[in-house]
Amino acid sequence: MYKAPIDDMTFALETLSQEMPHLAQSLPDAEMIDVILNEAGKLAGDVIAPLNHEADKKGGAVRQDDGSVKTPDGFADAFRQLAEGGWTSMEAQEAFGGQEMPLALSSCVNEMWQSSNMAFSLCHLLTQGLISALQHSASDEQKACFIPPMVEGRWTGTMNLTEPQAGTDLAAIKTKAVKQGDHYLISGQKIYITYGEHDMAENIVHLVLARTPDAPEGHKGISVFLVPKFLINDDGSLGERNDVHCVSIEKKLGIKGSPTAVLQYGDNGGAIGYLVGEENQGLAIMFGMMNHARFNVGLQGLALSDRALQQAISYAHTRTQGTPLLREAKTPIIHHPDVARLIGQMKAESEAMRALMIYGAALLDEAEEGDEAIRRRADFLIPIIKGWLTEQSLIMTSHNVQIHGGMGFIEETGAAQHYRDARILPIYEGTTAIQSNDLLFRKTIRDDGLEAKSFLAEIARDAQLASTHEDNVIQSLASQLITKTVEAETAIDSLLARQNQPRHIAASGVPYLMMLGTLSGAWMLLKQGIRAHKLAQQTGADTDRLNGKLSSLKLFAALTLPLVTSYAETVSLAGDATEALDVEALLH
Amino acid sequence: MYKAPIDDMTFALETLSQEMPHLAQSLPDAEMIDVILNEAGKLAGDVIAPLNHEADKKGGAVRQDDGSVKTPDGFADAFRQLAEGGWTSMEAQEAFGGQEMPLALSSCVNEMWQSSNMAFSLCHLLTQGLISALQHSASDEQKACFIPPMVEGRWTGTMNLTEPQAGTDLAAIKTKAVKQGDHYLISGQKIYITYGEHDMAENIVHLVLARTPDAPEGHKGISVFLVPKFLINDDGSLGERNDVHCVSIEKKLGIKGSPTAVLQYGDNGGAIGYLVGEENQGLAIMFGMMNHARFNVGLQGLALSDRALQQAISYAHTRTQGTPLLREAKTPIIHHPDVARLIGQMKAESEAMRALMIYGAALLDEAEEGDEAIRRRADFLIPIIKGWLTEQSLIMTSHNVQIHGGMGFIEETGAAQHYRDARILPIYEGTTAIQSNDLLFRKTIRDDGLEAKSFLAEIARDAQLASTHEDNVIQSLASQLITKTVEAETAIDSLLARQNQPRHIAASGVPYLMMLGTLSGAWMLLKQGIRAHKLAQQTGADTDRLNGKLSSLKLFAALTLPLVTSYAETVSLAGDATEALDVEALLH
Repeated sequence: MYKAPIDDMTFALETLSQEMPHLAQSLPDAEMIDVILNEAGKLAGDVIAPLNHEADKKGGAVRQDDGSVKTPDGFADAFRQLAEGGWTSMEAQEAFGGQEMPLALSSCVNEMWQSSNMAFSLCHLLTQGLISALQHSASDEQKACFIPPMVEGRWTGTMNLTEPQAGTDLAAIKTKAVKQGDHYLISGQKIYITYGEHDMAENIVHLVLARTPDAPEGHKGISVFLVPKFLINDDGSLGERNDVHCVSIEKKLGIKGSPTAVLQYGDNGGAIGYLVGEENQGLAIMFGMMNHARFNVGLQGLALSDRALQQAISYAHTRTQGTPLLREAKTPIIHHPDVARLIGQMKAESEAMRALMIYGAALLDEAEEGDEAIRRRADFLIPIIKGWLTEQSLIMTSHNVQIHGGMGFIEETGAAQHYRDARILPIYEGTTAIQSNDLLFRKTIRDDGLEAKSFLAEIARDAQLASTHEDNVIQSLASQLITKTVEAETAIDSLLARQNQPRHIAASGVPYLMMLGTLSGAWMLLKQGIRAHKLAQQTGADTDRLNGKLSSLKLFAALTLPLVTSYAETVSLAGDATEALDVEALLH
Repeated sequence: MYKAPIDDMTFALETLSQEMPHLAQSLPDAEMIDVILNEAGKLAGDVIAPLNHEADKKGGAVRQDDGSVKTPDGFADAFRQLAEGGWTSMEAQEAFGGQEMPLALSSCVNEMWQSSNMAFSLCHLLTQGLISALQHSASDEQKACFIPPMVEGRWTGTMNLTEPQAGTDLAAIKTKAVKQGDHYLISGQKIYITYGEHDMAENIVHLVLARTPDAPEGHKGISVFLVPKFLINDDGSLGERNDVHCVSIEKKLGIKGSPTAVLQYGDNGGAIGYLVGEENQGLAIMFGMMNHARFNVGLQGLALSDRALQQAISYAHTRTQGTPLLREAKTPIIHHPDVARLIGQMKAESEAMRALMIYGAALLDEAEEGDEAIRRRADFLIPIIKGWLTEQSLIMTSHNVQIHGGMGFIEETGAAQHYRDARILPIYEGTTAIQSNDLLFRKTIRDDGLEAKSFLAEIARDAQLASTHEDNVIQSLASQLITKTVEAETAIDSLLARQNQPRHIAASGVPYLMMLGTLSGAWMLLKQGIRAHKLAQQTGADTDRLNGKLSSLKLFAALTLPLVTSYAETVSLAGDATEALDVEALLH
């Protein structure tokens, strides 16, 4: 069972639209938003979600002896429905048949796909990433050839970065690309290729990082190529099979429905590939799409967290076990205070995460217009969104297992699947440590803390304004938030003061990221609380919304925001302690 | 690869022996301890550990059509070696062929079994639990019949508590027991029976909770019975098959090598069972063994954490990826500051957890002597050991996956298995919420905070003494610990002040437990640091030990102890926030 959280999405969009004119202008009218979210919600709930657990139970995607990959029952049909409903065209530019919807809106829809069935929806997500990359960097001819079939959902796309020796460190890539006429011959092995082979589309377009023979070593010698599974004839029809083959798929902890392929290029002379951009510009092109890719993984963290929340609520409302304190016998377990605490924390954090996700989407869209301040804020927030939302998903899916008790450990309930699925999120598209390095060195130290402090100052200003709010809950969260921003600022100062000790502060990167994620979440909920209060006063009616939001503020203030203090203390202490660790002695 | 942490075990035993005369007297001499730990370490490392991942990969235990259960390859042979080595007799009383080793020592050995292969070693653990229960509560005749074969490792034992409607709430048990001559006929269904059926022993002895026909409702009407798989002839040889059968085993998230059986009793007239103690005394008998059972699950949390730590160290020392800051190319990833942070945290916390485990074991043993103060301290610490150590194991096994990066998500490395295996620990033998209820209501509120505050005071006193220590690291941890105990005391006062709002404080139970667990860990490390410092001064030699321990103190102070502040804030805020949550509104 999955029910799209349309009300909360709409409220988050509206709340942020009040303060972000660009977002307000780019969104369709309220009625259209409603239609889009409801239609997507139906497809996600009725068609895509029911396939999720079944696919996992049956072991997921399977590679056949001929190298083809069979996706789980129903996946191909669901993908066809995604295409027929026009959902594969939401984000692309109109020139290629897309609808150019603002990211803040398409991301709400994407949350539904990922929430209902992450293993299935990864294919769509990656294809959107490829379309976006090509729109930015491909030649007109390449765009015209490759983008429309992906927008129509007839072809799908992949990212081919990782090799056995080159994961986080792309400089170590060895795959070769040798020029031959108007194309290149690609040879080598790529691993961890999500949907690198499958049966849901007519063709698969691989974006492949490789080196030309005379390329400089390291980062500067990487180029990027388009390598279709089937070559394309001049009339756009499919031609010969290209020399790229799936030699195995991985046995993974989670997202089993999604085939993770090892792809072998050029065993029969070389796979035909087409250079995107110029030679040796590969990493620049990849980095150009990194913000969106990382944002989308953060979104997946939110998506799984919300799915876990929904399952926890549903189970806790039906299961009876023991009599909750001061309640009647047979009262369901959601009335046990600790179950309520876990669910309350999940509710508040999911809402905070969703608002932050939408805020990030709005910033990414607006940044395209060239505003430098907006660009800085977007760049600053992306590692936080990726890191915090995905780390949160581990906690939330774990809470859901815990609420299920012994049943949570049995695969039948599906709670365990969400827990397993989530575990990839803080790893792929850059581990949390990579996000924290980006946040710390490129986004904090490089401008001497300017953006970090301006971000904090904005939170503190809002908190200051709200600290005299007439509503007690809002006022109380605001006061607490002021204290926490002061602690966070001290922590940032301690990082800035140790710039010349990069190893020391690097050890504080993840707690620093988590600290800012937590603060960001509180800030988002504060905005929502204030708006819910205002609306309730205006209409005198919507007290359910107000009560729900005030409850989230209270829960976040009690269960999540206190962590800022600990993170801040750790930020200042982690460097010395970590550097003092004798890692060689650990071997004895 | 598993290497028993013998040095750290020995050091923890010695450190605590300095302050606990009863422990010092009950332990064998240093040479004997050394022999025992080394021999156990060999068996764990060479025989038991290599079976662990293989069993998981092949899908674990399998039920055959005839109702028998085939355990993974090698398990039966390893169990035979465990018995032949005398390890199944370590804890039992001498009267039944046991060695009556002190729990602090046998627990170190148990850590090795659980660390090397938890799925396998659960069988041994449960059997020891049954022996202990029978020693306390069975008749002389029952003891003579059932205990020796289990001590010899020829038979194994199980606990049959749970039924589909009766998990946490044992009052809901429905299994029937009807008296017939000198025995009872048992009928009903039990679920989640670990090693309820298997092929590693000649006979299986089930301890079964059931109700007689005229028993009072609820808790007061539960009796406990011994139900052997094969009946026992007067000469002790095995007779007829009893009417208890494994109808299925569960498909679980982890510990797949361990069969989790659904047992059907009495489908052919009734399984023959023998009453233990008196009718309707079942729960009292079970509660009598609860401390040991919960302690042992806490120990499993430590065991998996240490296994994860060992794997993380080994991987991080061999894997290269990117060049760590200010290091040469090809330097392994353990030199990345964030990897070092994760491993450092795991090291410090594992050592703290081990010391706390051994402290708990020593208290449990000493409490048998009847000292009331010791009994109170043991009772106070057991839920903390169970709750904190098992919750920690989720974090530690997750860190290990994270350090493995993409490889961590692939089942092949085994990192994912530890992550999956650990997930049962905060659930079985009473969820963390159940532990926190016990800690809060029975161990804190009932005596008006006396034991809780005396525990804090002891920590504070030690911290005070150490706050002028000549070593900076010790002094600094001690000062920080003083602050944290003050925060913790305020939190306890806030709980005591709200005694008449039990639902409010119940919502704070888990953060309260985690707060005390964290403080306890710091306290244990402080003791170890002081002793390592003293030893280094006396001998002038053992600076490796001193450096290692000081490093753990520093890491714990930086990465773990700061959490106390957040937990304390949450303890005071969680009740209001949770009670304000409208759980019905979540359904809309």
